Amino acid sequence: MSTQNAQEPIIVPIDLEDRAYDIEIAPDVLDRLGGILKQKFPGARFGVVTDINVKNAQWARLQKSLDANGLDYALISIPPGENAKSMARLDSVVFALLKEKLERNDIILAFGGGVIGDLAGFAAAIMRRGMDFVQIPTSLLAQVDSSVGGKTGVNSPHGKNLIGAFHQPKFVAADLGVLDSLSDRHFRAGYAEVVKYGLIDDEEFFFWLEENQDNIFEGGPARAEAIARACRAKARVVVADEKEQGQRALLNLGHTFGHALEAATGYSDRLIHGEGVAIGMALAHRFSTSLGLSNTQDDQRVVAHLKKAGLPTNLSDIPGELPPTQELLDLIAQDKKVSRGALTFILTKGIGKAFIEKNVNPDLVFEFLNKERQK
Amino acid sequence: MSTQNAQEPIIVPIDLEDRAYDIEIAPDVLDRLGGILKQKFPGARFGVVTDINVKNAQWARLQKSLDANGLDYALISIPPGENAKSMARLDSVVFALLKEKLERNDIILAFGGGVIGDLAGFAAAIMRRGMDFVQIPTSLLAQVDSSVGGKTGVNSPHGKNLIGAFHQPKFVAADLGVLDSLSDRHFRAGYAEVVKYGLIDDEEFFFWLEENQDNIFEGGPARAEAIARACRAKARVVVADEKEQGQRALLNLGHTFGHALEAATGYSDRLIHGEGVAIGMALAHRFSTSLGLSNTQDDQRVVAHLKKAGLPTNLSDIPGELPPTQELLDLIAQDKKVSRGALTFILTKGIGKAFIEKNVNPDLVFEFLNKERQK
Repeated sequence: MSTQNAQEPIIVPIDLEDRAYDIEIAPDVLDRLGGILKQKFPGARFGVVTDINVKNAQWARLQKSLDANGLDYALISIPPGENAKSMARLDSVVFALLKEKLERNDIILAFGGGVIGDLAGFAAAIMRRGMDFVQIPTSLLAQVDSSVGGKTGVNSPHGKNLIGAFHQPKFVAADLGVLDSLSDRHFRAGYAEVVKYGLIDDEEFFFWLEENQDNIFEGGPARAEAIARACRAKARVVVADEKEQGQRALLNLGHTFGHALEAATGYSDRLIHGEGVAIGMALAHRFSTSLGLSNTQDDQRVVAHLKKAGLPTNLSDIPGELPPTQELLDLIAQDKKVSRGALTFILTKGIGKAFIEKNVNPDLVFEFLNKERQK
Repeated sequence: MSTQNAQEPIIVPIDLEDRAYDIEIAPDVLDRLGGILKQKFPGARFGVVTDINVKNAQWARLQKSLDANGLDYALISIPPGENAKSMARLDSVVFALLKEKLERNDIILAFGGGVIGDLAGFAAAIMRRGMDFVQIPTSLLAQVDSSVGGKTGVNSPHGKNLIGAFHQPKFVAADLGVLDSLSDRHFRAGYAEVVKYGLIDDEEFFFWLEENQDNIFEGGPARAEAIARACRAKARVVVADEKEQGQRALLNLGHTFGHALEAATGYSDRLIHGEGVAIGMALAHRFSTSLGLSNTQDDQRVVAHLKKAGLPTNLSDIPGELPPTQELLDLIAQDKKVSRGALTFILTKGIGKAFIEKNVNPDLVFEFLNKERQK
């Protein structure tokens, strides 16, 4: 912590014209947030949405900061877990926030990991046809992924994130201190998304991560820098393609396989999101190589790095039985990255060379997955 | 019908830049819709959302047109009524549409009155973070009001339309033939919204309505013209202020009182939306006069016109008991047209001279409503 406290805040601007906002990455931004909110939103009331774990671990710090600035707030706390991303939970959160008589100029604070960010952000998007919200991501995954880009939403029984809205936050407070209370497993899972940005289009960042992995995991100064670089990388893609008409789909590297595996394991503790992405990225690399697009050296280098971080890279790393391959393929086809029946995948020509392929033959995916199951 | 069939289609363009679309008003647009959709959305599948009443009365015509053009569609039919505008119903409609595996480039058809337009439009707004949709409004109210402007949404137990999104349709097919199967009561209710556009800022249109009311109610050529003029009037306001930051609030003339009365009567058959708006407009005029802003001659002229159309204009026209005045006031305050605790009303300086007043003293509203109850 002493190293972190000596660090200057890093501001990452997200340049989306009238929807522009800043991400502030700092060891103490949570303690300063009351003052920041008071200045940014004079006269506003705040509806804080969090889960019970985050409330127990982190609410005292935020509450102290809100109270010190005389801000008026209501706290809505829900059970933790991906199951919270449902229409039923959305309904109850919206009901609770409307009950607090939050008005159109008031602010929702999404205080938690990716699930809370997606759920509370979506609630903000649809309450009174659009209220402003602020993200306070408390997991590494949320800081580098969900807090950039404005994707909000919930899951459907038919698939993940099938219901939602593009809704940009007005500010993101990425506090480094909150990461210290994350479990090792969840920190690793978030790290998978950091690695992703190197794999998409920045091999130099991937090499930097190889060199700085220990410092990042120990909470040294490289941690803030890794978060900032990941946010900047995502911001570049999002600014170029906010509504995912084209290149933004690159951010789904590892996610087509990953989402299907998460669905196949019931969005349970068997496989958390970042772990699904880690396996998905390893699969995307090996699938690309099987199609003659990538190469075994790069695949192995990616797998070695993910393994060193303690992340899974094989189907067999998932505890328990997986459904039949055809069922996995159906889950892939139902994933929203599908266009008129053809399978779309993010494939790669090697580290930092990902691309969108819209015409993948489902038979080849079936064959590849069958082979992977034997490992 | 013979007069109508001789009429040329009227196209009202809604000029919202990359969200621009056309409204086509014609006696036979429903019969031509399959061809229009095939041309506008090549290769798309269609998810038709309707209610059981509309299905029984109108689906055969639409189905014939879709079939004749070889289009692939799925039909989702729900029970009729304002109760359908709930989060639970939204959830089930979205579930049913996703089950049909509609993809991001497929099209939702909102085939029904205002409730279906609001519900199916909102479903389109949040499915796969935004799908395209087409409005096929089958009531006069929906043709002149809900089909212009992109407001979609559902009700909350805390108030009407508190949950929703701005989502513009890609095309609106306003078929004159479907209006013939509308009940007189629902036609009158829709007419209240037509009158509103005269009252807001176009006294000449109000005078024209006074002269042409019979022809409009008989289904003569003035009917299509009245619909077109109302759509154009709404379009002017919406284009100037799509997200309701300012002047768009004028469209709420009669709605602040009206929504509260609808809530007070449980969104039931005791008071349907257009009737609430009719009483609300009469109240807005008389309240304005009580504040020394409008004048009794204009108030009486408005009331006379609404009465001639068979519309209610007094609180006592609502069958059954109303809740206490304080409760009505609470419902007004909970309506979303509220800013930081002050009551916002659309007031008027006379016919065609409505304006937004953001600082209405709740005590004056209480006193006024108490007086109105004595009538």
